[in-house]
Amino acid sequence: MAFKEKLLSVIESQNSLLCVGLDTDIERIPEHLKSESDPVLAFNREIIEATAEYAAAFKINTAFYEARGVQGWQTLQDTLDAIPPYCLTIADAKRGDIGNTSRMYAKSLFEVLGADAITVNPYMGHDSVRPFLEDPDKGVFILCVTSNPGSQDFQRISDGQSPLYKKIALTVQQWNDKSNCGLVVGATHPQELAEVRSWVPDMPFLIPGIGAQGGDIELAVRNGTDVQGTNALFNSSRAILYASSGPEYKSAAASVASKTRNELNRYRK
Amino acid sequence: MAFKEKLLSVIESQNSLLCVGLDTDIERIPEHLKSESDPVLAFNREIIEATAEYAAAFKINTAFYEARGVQGWQTLQDTLDAIPPYCLTIADAKRGDIGNTSRMYAKSLFEVLGADAITVNPYMGHDSVRPFLEDPDKGVFILCVTSNPGSQDFQRISDGQSPLYKKIALTVQQWNDKSNCGLVVGATHPQELAEVRSWVPDMPFLIPGIGAQGGDIELAVRNGTDVQGTNALFNSSRAILYASSGPEYKSAAASVASKTRNELNRYRK
Repeated sequence: MAFKEKLLSVIESQNSLLCVGLDTDIERIPEHLKSESDPVLAFNREIIEATAEYAAAFKINTAFYEARGVQGWQTLQDTLDAIPPYCLTIADAKRGDIGNTSRMYAKSLFEVLGADAITVNPYMGHDSVRPFLEDPDKGVFILCVTSNPGSQDFQRISDGQSPLYKKIALTVQQWNDKSNCGLVVGATHPQELAEVRSWVPDMPFLIPGIGAQGGDIELAVRNGTDVQGTNALFNSSRAILYASSGPEYKSAAASVASKTRNELNRYRK
Repeated sequence: MAFKEKLLSVIESQNSLLCVGLDTDIERIPEHLKSESDPVLAFNREIIEATAEYAAAFKINTAFYEARGVQGWQTLQDTLDAIPPYCLTIADAKRGDIGNTSRMYAKSLFEVLGADAITVNPYMGHDSVRPFLEDPDKGVFILCVTSNPGSQDFQRISDGQSPLYKKIALTVQQWNDKSNCGLVVGATHPQELAEVRSWVPDMPFLIPGIGAQGGDIELAVRNGTDVQGTNALFNSSRAILYASSGPEYKSAAASVASKTRNELNRYRK
Protein backbone atom coordinates (compact mmCIF):
# COMPACT_ATOMS: atom_id res chain seq x y z
CA MET A 1 0.00 0.00 0.00
CA ALA A 2 1.36 3.45 -0.91
CA PHE A 3 2.65 5.35 2.09
CA LYS A 4 0.04 8.10 2.25
CA GLU A 5 -2.78 5.61 1.96
CA LYS A 6 -1.20 3.51 4.71
CA LEU A 7 -0.88 6.58 6.95
CA LEU A 8 -4.52 7.62 6.53
CA SER A 9 -5.70 4.06 7.07
CA VAL A 10 -3.69 3.63 10.29
CA ILE A 11 -4.90 6.99 11.66
CA GLU A 12 -8.46 5.85 11.01
CA SER A 13 -8.18 2.30 12.34
CA GLN A 14 -6.31 3.41 15.47
CA ASN A 15 -8.51 6.51 15.77
CA SER A 16 -5.35 8.38 16.68
CA LEU A 17 -2.97 11.07 15.46
CA LEU A 18 -0.45 10.22 18.18
CA CYS A 19 3.11 9.22 17.44
CA VAL A 20 5.01 7.90 20.47
CA GLY A 21 8.67 8.85 20.36
CA LEU A 22 11.10 6.21 21.61
CA ASP A 23 14.02 8.55 22.40
CA THR A 24 15.05 6.30 25.23
CA ASP A 25 17.89 7.56 27.39
CA ILE A 26 19.41 4.73 29.43
CA GLU A 27 20.09 7.23 32.24
CA ARG A 28 16.38 7.86 32.64
CA ILE A 29 14.83 4.40 32.71
CA PRO A 30 13.61 2.87 35.99
CA GLU A 31 16.29 1.38 38.24
CA HIS A 32 14.87 -2.16 38.35
CA LEU A 33 15.27 -2.54 34.56
CA LYS A 34 18.99 -1.85 34.67
CA SER A 35 19.74 -5.48 35.57
CA GLU A 36 18.10 -6.70 32.33
CA SER A 37 20.47 -7.92 29.60
CA ASP A 38 19.25 -5.05 27.40
CA PRO A 39 17.63 -2.49 29.71
CA VAL A 40 16.63 -0.08 26.93
CA LEU A 41 14.96 -2.84 24.92
CA ALA A 42 13.15 -4.10 28.02
CA PHE A 43 11.91 -0.56 28.72
CA ASN A 44 10.89 0.03 25.09
CA ARG A 45 8.93 -3.24 24.99
CA GLU A 46 6.98 -2.20 28.07
CA ILE A 47 6.31 1.27 26.68
CA ILE A 48 5.22 -0.16 23.31
CA GLU A 49 2.91 -2.64 24.99
CA ALA A 50 1.43 0.08 27.22
CA THR A 51 0.88 2.69 24.52
CA ALA A 52 0.32 0.88 21.19
CA GLU A 53 -3.46 0.94 21.49
CA TYR A 54 -3.38 4.76 21.63
CA ALA A 55 -0.77 5.28 18.92
CA ALA A 56 -0.84 5.51 15.14
CA ALA A 57 2.94 5.40 14.97
CA PHE A 58 6.16 5.00 16.91
CA LYS A 59 9.11 7.22 16.08
CA ILE A 60 12.57 6.03 17.02
CA ASN A 61 15.29 8.61 17.22
CA THR A 62 18.44 6.88 16.04
CA ALA A 63 20.76 9.17 18.05
CA PHE A 64 19.74 7.63 21.36
CA TYR A 65 20.74 4.19 20.06
CA GLU A 66 23.93 5.20 18.24
CA ALA A 67 25.14 6.72 21.52
CA ARG A 68 25.54 3.11 22.70
CA GLY A 69 27.46 1.92 19.64
CA VAL A 70 27.09 -1.63 18.33
CA GLN A 71 24.87 -2.67 21.25
CA GLY A 72 22.65 0.35 20.65
CA TRP A 73 22.25 -0.48 16.98
CA GLN A 74 21.09 -3.98 17.98
CA THR A 75 18.60 -2.43 20.41
CA LEU A 76 17.34 -0.14 17.64
CA GLN A 77 16.73 -3.10 15.36
CA ASP A 78 15.07 -5.17 18.12
CA THR A 79 12.88 -2.22 19.14
CA LEU A 80 11.61 -1.74 15.59
CA ASP A 81 10.84 -5.46 15.47
CA ALA A 82 8.82 -5.15 18.70
CA ILE A 83 6.37 -2.58 17.31
CA PRO A 84 3.04 -4.18 16.39
CA PRO A 85 2.30 -4.26 12.64
CA TYR A 86 -0.86 -2.17 13.02
CA CYS A 87 1.27 0.88 13.95
CA LEU A 88 3.64 2.72 11.59
CA THR A 89 7.35 2.90 12.38
CA ILE A 90 9.34 6.06 11.75
CA ALA A 91 13.15 6.09 11.92
CA ASP A 92 13.92 9.67 12.92
CA ALA A 93 17.44 9.89 11.55
CA LYS A 94 17.49 13.28 9.73
CA ARG A 95 19.90 11.89 7.13
CA GLY A 96 20.89 13.40 3.79
CA ASP A 97 24.10 13.25 1.73
CA ILE A 98 25.26 13.14 -1.90
CA GLY A 99 23.28 10.69 -4.04
CA ASN A 100 25.38 7.54 -3.80
CA THR A 101 25.56 8.02 -0.02
CA SER A 102 21.87 8.74 0.53
CA ARG A 103 21.25 5.48 -1.32
CA MET A 104 23.17 3.71 1.46
CA TYR A 105 21.17 5.47 4.17
CA ALA A 106 17.94 4.47 2.41
CA LYS A 107 19.12 0.86 2.46
CA SER A 108 19.99 1.10 6.15
CA LEU A 109 16.72 2.64 7.28
CA PHE A 110 14.19 1.02 4.95
CA GLU A 111 15.74 -2.38 4.20
CA VAL A 112 17.94 -3.26 7.18
CA LEU A 113 15.85 -1.62 9.91
CA GLY A 114 12.60 -2.01 7.96
CA ALA A 115 11.11 1.36 8.96
CA ASP A 116 7.89 2.47 7.23
CA ALA A 117 9.03 6.08 7.15
CA ILE A 118 12.06 8.24 7.93
CA THR A 119 13.05 11.87 8.42
CA VAL A 120 15.44 13.58 5.98
CA ASN A 121 17.32 16.91 6.05
CA PRO A 122 16.84 18.84 2.77
CA TYR A 123 19.88 21.17 2.96
CA MET A 124 21.81 19.26 0.27
CA GLY A 125 18.93 19.38 -2.25
CA HIS A 126 17.28 17.08 -4.78
CA ASP A 127 19.93 14.42 -5.39
CA SER A 128 20.36 14.01 -1.61
CA VAL A 129 16.62 13.32 -1.15
CA ARG A 130 15.65 11.41 -4.33
CA PRO A 131 17.25 8.07 -3.34
CA PHE A 132 14.91 7.93 -0.34
CA LEU A 133 11.82 8.36 -2.52
CA GLU A 134 12.16 5.35 -4.79
CA ASP A 135 9.74 3.05 -2.98
CA PRO A 136 6.19 4.50 -2.93
CA ASP A 137 5.36 2.37 0.12
CA LYS A 138 7.99 4.12 2.24
CA GLY A 139 7.36 7.61 3.65
CA VAL A 140 9.91 10.43 3.79
CA PHE A 141 9.28 13.36 6.14
CA ILE A 142 11.52 16.24 5.09
CA LEU A 143 12.53 18.91 7.62
CA CYS A 144 10.70 22.16 6.93
CA VAL A 145 10.18 24.21 10.14
CA THR A 146 11.77 22.38 13.04
CA SER A 147 10.49 22.65 16.61
CA ASN A 148 13.69 23.92 18.25
CA PRO A 149 14.93 27.47 18.97
CA GLY A 150 17.62 27.18 16.26
CA SER A 151 14.88 26.96 13.63
CA GLN A 152 15.07 30.79 13.71
CA ASP A 153 18.64 30.85 12.40
CA PHE A 154 18.44 29.74 8.76
CA GLN A 155 14.99 28.34 7.95
CA ARG A 156 13.39 31.78 7.67
CA ILE A 157 15.89 33.47 5.37
CA SER A 158 13.75 35.10 2.69
CA ASP A 159 14.47 36.12 -0.89
CA GLY A 160 11.89 38.90 -0.54
CA GLN A 161 9.08 36.69 -1.82
CA SER A 162 9.18 33.64 0.39
CA PRO A 163 11.16 32.21 3.29
CA LEU A 164 13.35 29.15 2.82
CA TYR A 165 10.84 26.89 4.53
CA LYS A 166 8.22 27.85 1.90
CA LYS A 167 10.67 27.13 -0.90
CA ILE A 168 11.32 23.74 0.71
CA ALA A 169 7.61 22.93 1.09
CA LEU A 170 6.88 23.78 -2.54
CA THR A 171 9.97 21.96 -3.82
CA VAL A 172 9.03 18.83 -1.87
CA GLN A 173 5.59 19.06 -3.47
CA GLN A 174 7.34 18.81 -6.86
CA TRP A 175 9.31 15.76 -5.73
CA ASN A 176 6.12 14.07 -4.55
CA ASP A 177 5.24 12.15 -7.73
CA LYS A 178 4.92 8.91 -5.75
CA SER A 179 2.81 10.45 -2.93
CA ASN A 180 5.32 9.36 -0.32
CA CYS A 181 6.69 12.75 0.78
CA GLY A 182 5.78 14.47 4.01
CA LEU A 183 7.06 17.48 5.95
CA VAL A 184 8.30 18.01 9.50
CA VAL A 185 6.76 21.16 10.98
CA GLY A 186 7.07 21.89 14.70
CA ALA A 187 4.02 22.36 16.93
CA THR A 188 6.00 25.13 18.63
CA HIS A 189 5.37 27.31 15.54
CA PRO A 190 1.57 27.22 15.08
CA GLN A 191 1.54 30.17 12.69
CA GLU A 192 4.03 28.55 10.31
CA LEU A 193 2.12 25.28 10.66
CA ALA A 194 -1.01 26.98 9.30
CA GLU A 195 0.96 28.60 6.49
CA VAL A 196 2.65 25.38 5.40
CA ARG A 197 -0.67 23.51 5.55
CA SER A 198 -2.18 26.13 3.24
CA TRP A 199 0.64 25.69 0.69
CA VAL A 200 0.54 21.88 0.64
CA PRO A 201 -2.99 20.95 1.72
CA ASP A 202 -2.65 17.24 0.95
CA MET A 203 0.79 16.42 2.27
CA PRO A 204 1.33 14.31 5.41
CA PHE A 205 2.91 16.23 8.32
CA LEU A 206 5.02 14.90 11.14
CA ILE A 207 4.60 17.40 13.97
CA PRO A 208 7.03 17.24 16.88
CA GLY A 209 7.01 19.66 19.81
CA ILE A 210 3.91 18.79 21.81
CA GLY A 211 4.72 17.27 25.20
CA ALA A 212 8.06 18.21 26.78
CA GLN A 213 8.75 20.89 24.14
CA GLY A 214 5.55 22.71 25.10
CA GLY A 215 3.69 23.20 21.79
CA ASP A 216 -0.03 24.00 22.17
CA ILE A 217 -2.04 20.93 21.18
CA GLU A 218 -5.24 22.69 20.16
CA LEU A 219 -3.47 25.10 17.81
CA ALA A 220 -1.22 22.38 16.45
CA VAL A 221 -4.17 20.16 15.55
CA ARG A 222 -6.32 22.97 14.10
CA ASN A 223 -3.41 24.29 12.02
CA GLY A 224 -1.62 21.06 11.16
CA THR A 225 -4.30 18.58 10.10
CA ASP A 226 -5.89 18.70 6.64
CA VAL A 227 -9.50 19.66 5.81
CA GLN A 228 -10.62 16.19 6.90
CA GLY A 229 -8.88 16.57 10.27
CA THR A 230 -6.29 13.91 9.44
CA ASN A 231 -3.00 13.49 7.53
CA ALA A 232 -0.76 14.49 10.44
CA LEU A 233 1.09 12.69 13.20
CA PHE A 234 1.86 14.50 16.46
CA ASN A 235 4.89 13.24 18.30
CA SER A 236 5.43 13.14 22.03
CA SER A 237 8.51 11.42 23.43
CA ARG A 238 9.74 12.44 26.88
CA ALA A 239 6.31 13.31 28.32
CA ILE A 240 5.20 9.71 27.71
CA LEU A 241 8.44 7.77 28.29
CA TYR A 242 9.22 9.44 31.58
CA ALA A 243 5.66 10.05 32.79
CA SER A 244 6.84 8.41 36.00
CA SER A 245 10.27 7.28 37.11
CA GLY A 246 8.75 4.91 39.68
CA PRO A 247 7.52 1.32 39.33
CA GLU A 248 4.21 2.52 37.84
CA TYR A 249 6.02 3.99 34.78
CA LYS A 250 4.13 1.68 32.47
CA SER A 251 0.62 2.66 33.54
CA ALA A 252 1.74 6.30 33.75
CA ALA A 253 2.98 6.15 30.12
CA ALA A 254 -0.30 4.52 29.04
CA SER A 255 -2.27 7.20 30.83
CA VAL A 256 -0.34 10.11 29.23
CA ALA A 257 -0.56 8.44 25.80
CA SER A 258 -4.30 7.90 26.19
CA LYS A 259 -4.90 11.48 27.35
CA THR A 260 -2.76 12.90 24.56
CA ARG A 261 -4.56 10.79 21.96
CA ASN A 262 -7.91 12.01 23.28
CA GLU A 263 -6.83 15.63 23.40
CA LEU A 264 -5.55 15.41 19.81
CA ASN A 265 -8.87 13.90 18.70
CA ARG A 266 -10.89 16.56 20.53
CA TYR A 267 -9.60 19.31 18.23
CA ARG A 268 -9.89 17.45 14.91
CA LYS A 269 -12.36 18.78 12.38
CA MET B 1 45.67 19.72 21.69
CA ALA B 2 42.93 22.00 20.36
CA PHE B 3 41.48 20.77 17.07
CA LYS B 4 42.74 23.48 14.76
CA GLU B 5 46.26 23.20 16.13
CA LYS B 6 46.11 19.41 15.69
CA LEU B 7 44.95 19.80 12.09
CA LEU B 8 47.74 22.22 11.14
CA SER B 9 50.30 20.05 12.87
CA VAL B 10 49.19 16.86 11.07
CA ILE B 11 49.15 18.62 7.69
CA GLU B 12 52.71 19.73 8.35
CA SER B 13 54.08 16.47 9.70
CA GLN B 14 52.45 14.40 6.93
CA ASN B 15 53.23 17.09 4.36
CA SER B 16 49.77 16.42 2.98
CA LEU B 17 46.36 18.00 2.51
CA LEU B 18 44.87 14.67 1.45
CA CYS B 19 41.92 13.08 3.21
CA VAL B 20 41.24 9.50 2.14
CA GLY B 21 37.52 8.72 2.20
CA LEU B 22 36.59 5.23 3.36
CA ASP B 23 33.15 5.04 1.74
CA THR B 24 33.58 1.35 1.25
CA ASP B 25 30.85 -0.40 -0.71
CA ILE B 26 30.94 -4.16 -0.15
CA GLU B 27 29.77 -4.65 -3.75
CA ARG B 28 32.91 -3.00 -5.06
CA ILE B 29 35.72 -4.66 -3.12
CA PRO B 30 37.95 -7.29 -4.77
CA GLU B 31 36.49 -10.80 -5.03
CA HIS B 32 39.19 -12.58 -3.03
CA LEU B 33 38.40 -10.52 0.09
CA LYS B 34 34.80 -11.65 0.18
CA SER B 35 35.70 -14.86 1.99
CA GLU B 36 37.18 -12.88 4.92
CA SER B 37 35.08 -12.86 8.12
CA ASP B 38 34.68 -9.08 7.70
CA PRO B 39 35.49 -8.27 4.06
CA VAL B 40 34.99 -4.51 4.39
CA LEU B 41 37.29 -4.32 7.40
CA ALA B 42 39.92 -6.41 5.62
CA PHE B 43 39.72 -4.09 2.61
CA ASN B 44 39.82 -0.95 4.76
CA ARG B 45 42.89 -2.19 6.65
CA GLU B 46 44.71 -2.76 3.37
CA ILE B 47 43.71 0.67 2.04
CA ILE B 48 44.73 2.38 5.29
CA GLU B 49 48.09 0.61 5.28
CA ALA B 50 48.67 1.50 1.63
CA THR B 51 47.68 5.17 1.84
CA ALA B 52 48.41 6.38 5.40
CA GLU B 53 51.83 7.76 4.53
CA TYR B 54 50.25 10.10 1.96
CA ALA B 55 47.24 11.14 4.06
CA ALA B 56 46.64 13.78 6.70
CA ALA B 57 43.23 12.29 7.51
CA PHE B 58 40.79 9.48 6.85
CA LYS B 59 37.11 10.26 6.50
CA ILE B 60 34.63 7.50 7.12
CA ASN B 61 31.16 7.94 5.73
CA THR B 62 28.82 6.32 8.25
CA ALA B 63 26.13 5.56 5.62
CA PHE B 64 28.19 2.83 4.01
CA TYR B 65 28.47 1.05 7.36
CA GLU B 66 24.90 1.61 8.56
CA ALA B 67 23.72 -0.03 5.34
CA ARG B 68 25.00 -3.28 6.87
CA GLY B 69 23.24 -2.84 10.24
CA VAL B 70 24.80 -4.11 13.45
CA GLN B 71 27.68 -5.80 11.60
CA GLY B 72 28.38 -2.57 9.74
CA TRP B 73 28.49 -0.56 12.93
CA GLN B 74 31.10 -2.99 14.28
CA THR B 75 33.12 -2.57 11.07
CA LEU B 76 32.89 1.20 11.44
CA GLN B 77 34.28 1.03 14.96
CA ASP B 78 37.04 -1.44 13.98
CA THR B 79 37.99 0.68 10.96
CA LEU B 80 38.38 3.81 13.08
CA ASP B 81 40.55 1.80 15.47
CA ALA B 82 42.76 0.70 12.54
CA ILE B 83 43.71 4.26 11.52
CA PRO B 84 47.22 5.16 12.71
CA PRO B 85 47.33 7.83 15.42
CA TYR B 86 49.39 10.21 13.28
CA CYS B 87 46.40 10.72 10.95
CA LEU B 88 43.15 12.49 11.87
CA THR B 89 39.86 10.59 11.78
CA ILE B 90 36.69 12.24 10.50
CA ALA B 91 33.27 10.63 10.95
CA ASP B 92 31.30 11.97 8.01
CA ALA B 93 27.82 11.60 9.44
CA LYS B 94 26.12 14.94 8.61
CA ARG B 95 24.08 14.77 11.81
CA GLY B 96 22.06 17.52 13.47
CA ASP B 97 18.91 17.46 15.61
CA ILE B 98 17.33 19.27 18.56
CA GLY B 99 19.76 19.90 21.43
CA ASN B 100 19.14 16.87 23.63
CA THR B 101 19.40 14.64 20.55
CA SER B 102 22.54 16.24 19.08
CA ARG B 103 24.12 15.59 22.47
CA MET B 104 23.52 11.86 21.87
CA TYR B 105 25.05 12.05 18.39
CA ALA B 106 28.08 13.83 19.84
CA LYS B 107 28.46 11.01 22.33
CA SER B 108 28.18 8.41 19.59
CA LEU B 109 30.70 9.99 17.22
CA PHE B 110 33.26 11.47 19.61
CA GLU B 111 33.09 9.15 22.61
CA VAL B 112 31.94 5.76 21.31
CA LEU B 113 33.61 5.87 17.90
CA GLY B 114 36.37 8.21 19.09
CA ALA B 115 36.55 10.32 15.91
CA ASP B 116 38.72 13.45 15.96
CA ALA B 117 36.23 15.37 13.86
CA ILE B 118 32.76 15.04 12.36
CA THR B 119 30.48 16.67 9.79
CA VAL B 120 27.26 18.40 10.87
CA ASN B 121 24.24 19.74 8.95
CA PRO B 122 23.37 23.30 10.04
CA TYR B 123 19.74 23.46 8.87
CA MET B 124 18.33 23.20 12.43
CA GLY B 125 20.46 26.08 13.77
CA HIS B 126 22.48 26.91 16.87
CA ASP B 127 21.06 24.53 19.47
CA SER B 128 21.45 21.63 17.01
CA VAL B 129 25.17 22.39 16.52
CA ARG B 130 26.29 23.62 19.96
CA PRO B 131 26.35 20.18 21.66
CA PHE B 132 29.00 19.08 19.14
CA LEU B 133 31.26 22.02 20.00
CA GLU B 134 31.80 21.41 23.70
CA ASP B 135 35.20 19.73 23.46
CA PRO B 136 37.83 22.04 21.91
CA ASP B 137 39.92 19.02 20.90
CA LYS B 138 37.18 17.72 18.61
CA GLY B 139 36.57 19.31 15.20
CA VAL B 140 33.17 20.01 13.65
CA PHE B 141 32.93 20.63 9.91
CA ILE B 142 29.59 22.26 9.18
CA LEU B 143 28.01 21.93 5.72
CA CYS B 144 28.23 25.21 3.82
CA VAL B 145 28.38 24.66 0.03
CA THR B 146 28.15 20.96 -0.69
CA SER B 147 29.76 19.31 -3.72
CA ASN B 148 26.63 17.79 -5.26
CA PRO B 149 24.20 19.12 -7.91
CA GLY B 150 21.46 19.61 -5.27
CA SER B 151 23.60 22.27 -3.62
CA GLN B 152 21.90 24.61 -6.13
CA ASP B 153 18.45 24.07 -4.62
CA PHE B 154 18.51 25.81 -1.24
CA GLN B 155 22.06 26.82 -0.26
CA ARG B 156 22.07 29.85 -2.55
CA ILE B 157 18.76 31.43 -1.54
CA SER B 158 19.62 35.09 -0.95
CA ASP B 159 17.99 37.78 1.16
CA GLY B 160 19.26 40.40 -1.30
CA GLN B 161 22.48 40.93 0.64
CA SER B 162 23.96 37.48 0.99
CA PRO B 163 23.20 33.88 0.08
CA LEU B 164 22.37 31.32 2.76
CA TYR B 165 25.83 29.77 2.55
CA LYS B 166 27.38 33.14 3.47
CA LYS B 167 25.02 33.51 6.41
CA ILE B 168 26.05 30.02 7.52
CA ALA B 169 29.79 30.74 7.17
CA LEU B 170 29.52 33.95 9.20
CA THR B 171 27.28 32.36 11.82
CA VAL B 172 29.68 29.46 12.26
CA GLN B 173 32.43 32.03 12.74
CA GLN B 174 30.43 33.38 15.70
CA TRP B 175 30.03 29.87 17.15
CA ASN B 176 33.78 29.31 16.90
CA ASP B 177 34.85 30.50 20.34
CA LYS B 178 36.75 27.24 20.93
CA SER B 179 38.50 27.25 17.51
CA ASN B 180 37.08 23.85 16.69
CA CYS B 181 34.65 24.75 13.88
CA GLY B 182 35.30 24.13 10.22
CA LEU B 183 33.25 24.29 7.03
CA VAL B 184 32.48 21.84 4.23
CA VAL B 185 32.83 23.53 0.84
CA GLY B 186 32.83 21.45 -2.35
CA ALA B 187 35.76 21.52 -4.80
CA THR B 188 33.13 21.39 -7.54
CA HIS B 189 32.33 25.07 -6.76
CA PRO B 190 35.73 26.83 -6.98
CA GLN B 191 34.16 30.30 -7.12
CA GLU B 192 32.22 29.81 -3.90
CA LEU B 193 35.30 28.23 -2.34
CA ALA B 194 37.23 31.48 -2.94
CA GLU B 195 34.35 33.57 -1.59
CA VAL B 196 33.96 31.52 1.59
CA ARG B 197 37.73 31.54 2.16
CA SER B 198 37.67 35.34 1.94
CA TRP B 199 34.90 35.59 4.56
CA VAL B 200 36.51 33.21 7.07
CA PRO B 201 40.25 33.32 6.29
CA ASP B 202 41.31 31.30 9.35
CA MET B 203 38.75 28.52 9.43
CA PRO B 204 39.60 24.91 8.55
CA PHE B 205 37.86 23.61 5.42
CA LEU B 206 36.94 20.07 4.52
CA ILE B 207 36.76 20.02 0.72
CA PRO B 208 35.10 17.04 -0.97
CA GLY B 209 34.59 16.70 -4.70
CA ILE B 210 38.05 16.09 -6.13
CA GLY B 211 38.46 12.58 -7.53
CA ALA B 212 35.32 10.81 -8.76
CA GLN B 213 33.21 13.97 -8.44
CA GLY B 214 35.52 15.81 -10.85
CA GLY B 215 36.47 19.01 -9.01
CA ASP B 216 39.56 20.78 -10.40
CA ILE B 217 42.45 20.25 -8.00
CA GLU B 218 44.46 23.34 -8.88
CA LEU B 219 41.53 25.72 -8.43
CA ALA B 220 40.39 23.94 -5.28
CA VAL B 221 43.80 24.29 -3.65
CA ARG B 222 44.37 27.88 -4.73
CA ASN B 223 40.91 28.94 -3.59
CA GLY B 224 40.44 26.69 -0.57
CA THR B 225 43.70 26.86 1.41
CA ASP B 226 44.53 29.83 3.63
CA VAL B 227 47.28 32.45 3.07
CA GLN B 228 49.86 29.95 4.33
CA GLY B 229 48.65 27.30 1.86
CA THR B 230 47.28 25.09 4.61
CA ASN B 231 44.17 24.74 6.83
CA ALA B 232 42.20 22.60 4.38
CA LEU B 233 41.69 18.88 3.78
CA PHE B 234 40.80 17.62 0.31
CA ASN B 235 38.84 14.40 0.25
CA SER B 236 38.99 11.70 -2.36
CA SER B 237 37.11 8.44 -1.81
CA ARG B 238 36.15 6.34 -4.83
CA ALA B 239 39.12 7.35 -7.02
CA ILE B 240 41.47 5.88 -4.40
CA LEU B 241 39.42 2.96 -3.05
CA TYR B 242 38.56 1.57 -6.46
CA ALA B 243 41.71 2.61 -8.32
CA SER B 244 41.82 -1.00 -9.45
CA SER B 245 39.35 -3.84 -8.98
CA GLY B 246 42.07 -6.43 -9.60
CA PRO B 247 44.58 -8.02 -7.21
CA GLU B 248 46.84 -4.96 -7.42
CA TYR B 249 44.15 -2.73 -5.82
CA LYS B 250 46.44 -1.95 -2.90
CA SER B 251 49.36 -0.61 -4.89
CA ALA B 252 46.91 1.14 -7.22
CA ALA B 253 45.30 2.91 -4.25
CA ALA B 254 48.73 3.88 -2.91
CA SER B 255 49.71 5.23 -6.29
CA VAL B 256 46.55 7.37 -6.68
CA ALA B 257 46.89 8.62 -3.09
CA SER B 258 50.53 9.52 -3.63
CA LYS B 259 49.81 11.31 -6.92
CA THR B 260 46.88 13.18 -5.41
CA ARG B 261 48.94 14.24 -2.39
CA ASN B 262 51.68 15.52 -4.71
CA GLU B 263 49.25 17.32 -6.96
CA LEU B 264 47.62 19.01 -3.97
CA ASN B 265 51.05 20.09 -2.70
CA ARG B 266 52.10 21.43 -6.10
CA TYR B 267 49.45 24.18 -5.96
CA ARG B 268 49.95 25.25 -2.33
CA LYS B 269 51.21 28.75 -1.72
